[in-house]
Amino acid sequence: QDRLKTFTAKFVVSIQSWIVLTIMGVCIGLIAAAINILTEWLGNFKTGYCKTNFYLNQEFCCWGEEEDCESWQRWSDHAILRYLIFIFISVTFGTIAALLCRAYAPSAAGSGISEVKCIVSGFVMDGFLGWWTLIIKSIALPLVISSGLSVGKEGPSVHYAACVGNVIPKLFKRFGRSYSSLSQFLTAGSAAGVAVAFASPIGGVLFSIEEITSNFKLSTLWKSYYCALVATGTLSAMNPFRTGQIVMFEVKYESSWKYFEIPFFMILGVFGGVYGIVVAKLNIKVVAFRQKYLSNHAIREVVLLCLFTSAIGYFNEFSRLEMSEGMQILFHECGGEFDHSLCKIEKNVGLRFKFFVSLIYATLLRVFLVVISYGCKVPCGIFVPSMAAGATFGRAVGLLVETLNPCTGANEGTCTISGTYAFLGAAAALSGITHLTLTVVVIMFELTGANRYIIPTMIVVGVTKIINDKWGIGFGGIADQMIKFNGIPFLDPKEEHDFEDHKITDCMADQVVTLPATGATYKDLEQVLAETPFQTYPIVAEDGTTVLGLVKRTDLLLGLNHHKHKRNMVIPLDTPVCFVSQTRADDESDMLKLETYVDHQYYRININSSFNTLLNIFMKLGPKLVVVEDFGKLSGIICRKDLIMFELHLHQHKHEDIFVTDSD
Amino acid sequence: QDRLKTFTAKFVVSIQSWIVLTIMGVCIGLIAAAINILTEWLGNFKTGYCKTNFYLNQEFCCWGEEEDCESWQRWSDHAILRYLIFIFISVTFGTIAALLCRAYAPSAAGSGISEVKCIVSGFVMDGFLGWWTLIIKSIALPLVISSGLSVGKEGPSVHYAACVGNVIPKLFKRFGRSYSSLSQFLTAGSAAGVAVAFASPIGGVLFSIEEITSNFKLSTLWKSYYCALVATGTLSAMNPFRTGQIVMFEVKYESSWKYFEIPFFMILGVFGGVYGIVVAKLNIKVVAFRQKYLSNHAIREVVLLCLFTSAIGYFNEFSRLEMSEGMQILFHECGGEFDHSLCKIEKNVGLRFKFFVSLIYATLLRVFLVVISYGCKVPCGIFVPSMAAGATFGRAVGLLVETLNPCTGANEGTCTISGTYAFLGAAAALSGITHLTLTVVVIMFELTGANRYIIPTMIVVGVTKIINDKWGIGFGGIADQMIKFNGIPFLDPKEEHDFEDHKITDCMADQVVTLPATGATYKDLEQVLAETPFQTYPIVAEDGTTVLGLVKRTDLLLGLNHHKHKRNMVIPLDTPVCFVSQTRADDESDMLKLETYVDHQYYRININSSFNTLLNIFMKLGPKLVVVEDFGKLSGIICRKDLIMFELHLHQHKHEDIFVTDSD
Repeated sequence: QDRLKTFTAKFVVSIQSWIVLTIMGVCIGLIAAAINILTEWLGNFKTGYCKTNFYLNQEFCCWGEEEDCESWQRWSDHAILRYLIFIFISVTFGTIAALLCRAYAPSAAGSGISEVKCIVSGFVMDGFLGWWTLIIKSIALPLVISSGLSVGKEGPSVHYAACVGNVIPKLFKRFGRSYSSLSQFLTAGSAAGVAVAFASPIGGVLFSIEEITSNFKLSTLWKSYYCALVATGTLSAMNPFRTGQIVMFEVKYESSWKYFEIPFFMILGVFGGVYGIVVAKLNIKVVAFRQKYLSNHAIREVVLLCLFTSAIGYFNEFSRLEMSEGMQILFHECGGEFDHSLCKIEKNVGLRFKFFVSLIYATLLRVFLVVISYGCKVPCGIFVPSMAAGATFGRAVGLLVETLNPCTGANEGTCTISGTYAFLGAAAALSGITHLTLTVVVIMFELTGANRYIIPTMIVVGVTKIINDKWGIGFGGIADQMIKFNGIPFLDPKEEHDFEDHKITDCMADQVVTLPATGATYKDLEQVLAETPFQTYPIVAEDGTTVLGLVKRTDLLLGLNHHKHKRNMVIPLDTPVCFVSQTRADDESDMLKLETYVDHQYYRININSSFNTLLNIFMKLGPKLVVVEDFGKLSGIICRKDLIMFELHLHQHKHEDIFVTDSD
Repeated sequence: QDRLKTFTAKFVVSIQSWIVLTIMGVCIGLIAAAINILTEWLGNFKTGYCKTNFYLNQEFCCWGEEEDCESWQRWSDHAILRYLIFIFISVTFGTIAALLCRAYAPSAAGSGISEVKCIVSGFVMDGFLGWWTLIIKSIALPLVISSGLSVGKEGPSVHYAACVGNVIPKLFKRFGRSYSSLSQFLTAGSAAGVAVAFASPIGGVLFSIEEITSNFKLSTLWKSYYCALVATGTLSAMNPFRTGQIVMFEVKYESSWKYFEIPFFMILGVFGGVYGIVVAKLNIKVVAFRQKYLSNHAIREVVLLCLFTSAIGYFNEFSRLEMSEGMQILFHECGGEFDHSLCKIEKNVGLRFKFFVSLIYATLLRVFLVVISYGCKVPCGIFVPSMAAGATFGRAVGLLVETLNPCTGANEGTCTISGTYAFLGAAAALSGITHLTLTVVVIMFELTGANRYIIPTMIVVGVTKIINDKWGIGFGGIADQMIKFNGIPFLDPKEEHDFEDHKITDCMADQVVTLPATGATYKDLEQVLAETPFQTYPIVAEDGTTVLGLVKRTDLLLGLNHHKHKRNMVIPLDTPVCFVSQTRADDESDMLKLETYVDHQYYRININSSFNTLLNIFMKLGPKLVVVEDFGKLSGIICRKDLIMFELHLHQHKHEDIFVTDSD
């Protein structure tokens, strides 16, 4: 009967956890659908409105009507006035978003991936994943996207999805407090966030493995899988694009790739790597500048960015279009029903050259805009703008290849498709900025269904990765760099850490303030607490070097408070303090017994152990502090922060001091 | 200048590692291509031979010829004689493979995934990944596949690919000895093995993450990615199927799935779960039976299996065909150029029923054959046969759905495609037996390019996973169950381990044989070594309870030997032994100093810590032994094996004693 009880209890727990995941998935899917619909409507609103039904977007307003759509009313017939209204509405959208963020949820600004990653690995950031952040991020995101700023929605999607993964489980008592279950729900939420942003469930799960999780478990994988599936299913059932499929821009390439194209693919890969390095480096400088000089001018900055982006971008076809729309055009294979002007340049060398220049210009403009926009005080992601930059560059390369190898009747077998270059360019840039490999390949694959192009995509992403590894500034993709930049003491167990041939003693603190297990008085204790700033003190035996446990400052204060209350707030200064349980008969009743506040499970390392052992303990078991011993005697302690600072210091030797700001 | 040197040295290392990975990838690709070509030729050889060129297979022999192929000579014009020759050749192939395995490389028999998994996580199995295994596995595999046994090639592919990942790096001095680099190369090899077996590079990488690796690192991921890419690229360049693409059976479904199909998809998922549970359970019983009674009759067993399989399978269309060929037919959408007889049953209820029965019969036969064949003493995998069983069952369900919802002109929008059910059934069975989720979805996706069917595939695999989790026998997929069955002390850090509310003391050995740091004599030491069987002894201080280090039996013997040699083989029995470095002045020169053999870096845990902490130390840091302390005093020790036995014991309480053999 007892077994039945345990079984039932377990069953209820597991059912509850699935209910929570289902609710999470449905919520994320619904929010994503709402954001998609709203973004489209607001985006169309910049050019005009629907006369018949104000709330319809251009596509539905003109549903069924041919070429000329009468119901859709443009704001003005004057080109210049249209231009000014376009700019005005863009700036308004951006400003509202910025104001919302500042007023209600400052943590809703930015991408959020870095922070989610840290929270999943155990850092506590209050309010970062609360209700307000969720609401403001979901409202501000469509505004920002439709304002035309060069920012994407996938980073913020991860953030609001992680918010859902934080607030929903807390509605259930059982999941409110456990860190490990929270971490699983957050990971599952992040997976669902990417899944709905790109309509790519597998890509989402891979993102959660490759970027978010710090402790790979099959149960987390399975939860992410389930949550991403439910979210994508919900989004697909809502069917926001009314196309009957969840793939954002399905592409079918008629012919496969040819071996002679591989060198050109590699050029795209190199572009992706260079893009990643340049953009990350410049963006960090911009972010540092913003922190230093613009922190009080956040709204003004957003206004200026919107103004600049819409005013300049309006004149280039590829930068004016909404980014995913633009990519759809760029990815497409010419022929069949697709008759964009890009496809009418067969014979016309002049037009070809014009498009080439236009594409290169769009690439450069996009890169510049990404650098200055990413990180401003509105919800902003960097995935889609990077893909857009890669797509324009890739299409330009594609045009070049088409010119070198024109497709005539004679060599039909070796015709190249310039759309595939745009596709691969987008993959390269996305991989370059995020340092993700598998995720990018799968996302591109799921986005377009171009399953014949898996090997080229893998080649391009591989080249990008090699470039990034060899000449990058280190510390992984932009999310990881932001973590370093913000000085969060985060050690990613997935990454390789290079401490060369250093020894444990190189980053050890050997002057340790200890507390004796017995023999100290209350006065000594107060003195130590007042005079030293440390968070943890080792408790040592009478010999002064054998560690018996650790006690945290907070626990110590708690314990002292407890005793004060028991003794009517008066503790004589000479009361003896004791940190070990006394079994002796001469039990002094007035002794301050603090043994319950001592932590006996801490990690020790021998002073002659390799640095790798130390690293493994920190990364895999996650303590804040490791005690270094020499033959059982205390030699020193190493904090997690010391290790991080040490790594930063080594990095600085090799590279520029990009992650070290003035305040350090 | 020093920095330049370090830089150059590092550059050479990293270049070398890429060269190794490239060679590995190319080798694996070439072997896979050779196996593919050989398998096809041998398979065709069972029915006839090419008159014009003996070495051509049927397809190439008949290249360009219409319907009647004159050059292809069947063995006989008599049906019965053809049948007998078919059986004879099948048995011959199987027998040769079994003889090869027994004579040259017994470890080449079986699947190999379980063992590779253990080796990657640090177990040493001599010769399991050597040159002989590689050669014999590569030669025997095509023989076995074409013998028609119900076994697949992906498990063995992982094995030979891991062999390549073992032998190639050893040709380079630098990678010969390091365990961590070996583990990375093996993981990369396994990824490439699955990649070439299914022509699915991403699937291969995911397999290495989900199944093989026990310590997820981005650098390993990237190496697997690269190796799988090179291997698939090589295979595709060799172009063994002469179809110009690496996808084994590309399927294009014209229409998408409908929501009302979801319940039927779920039925397939349930089938997958049940299949996984039943087959795993029965197969383990068969394997136990084989170990007990058939270990001396391995060849005879294979002969009988081949005889039985070919004699029975010949009469059913779906079991006679080579499994991947059969799946290609089952997956296909009717219409267009595809005119298999399965597509001509539109109106004919009798024929439809006949096919239904035939498919169900094929499913049951396949399940039976898988159960008795998997694990016999030839190279054998279980992925493809499972998929084949799932495909026949799925197609049967598809026929049923078509009957319930016939596709007439009136409801064209809701037509179902029975081929998709076969496709999803294959996914379900594959997931059911392996317990892989993401990998299965991606493999199915890459195999067929059916990107519209991602969500249904995810649903099916999800249901399978739920069934498996709730009613399975525990311990994961068949590979993990084999590990448990073989009693390998392997704790997978990816898996959840359920130790309920047990305490550390429940699996702790509290009677510990210790050695005093000083004060013991040589006689005492020899006595302890002779009278106790332990592999490791704690060294304790004078108080008898403070652990100063651990010493391994092997190291101790080594140390004693060293001293014996130094002292001309004579050590007086009363010589004092010392395990700590003496700094005192009265250094006794005749003392046996063994301090260099003491290991000071070992892991300790407080007796009151949670079981989870213990588990984390074992799983993530991988020691063989953890010392349990109570306030710095030795309370007991826990070995990895104790923990595994404890888990097995708990499992046995809940389930049958399926993993506990008589010998335990």
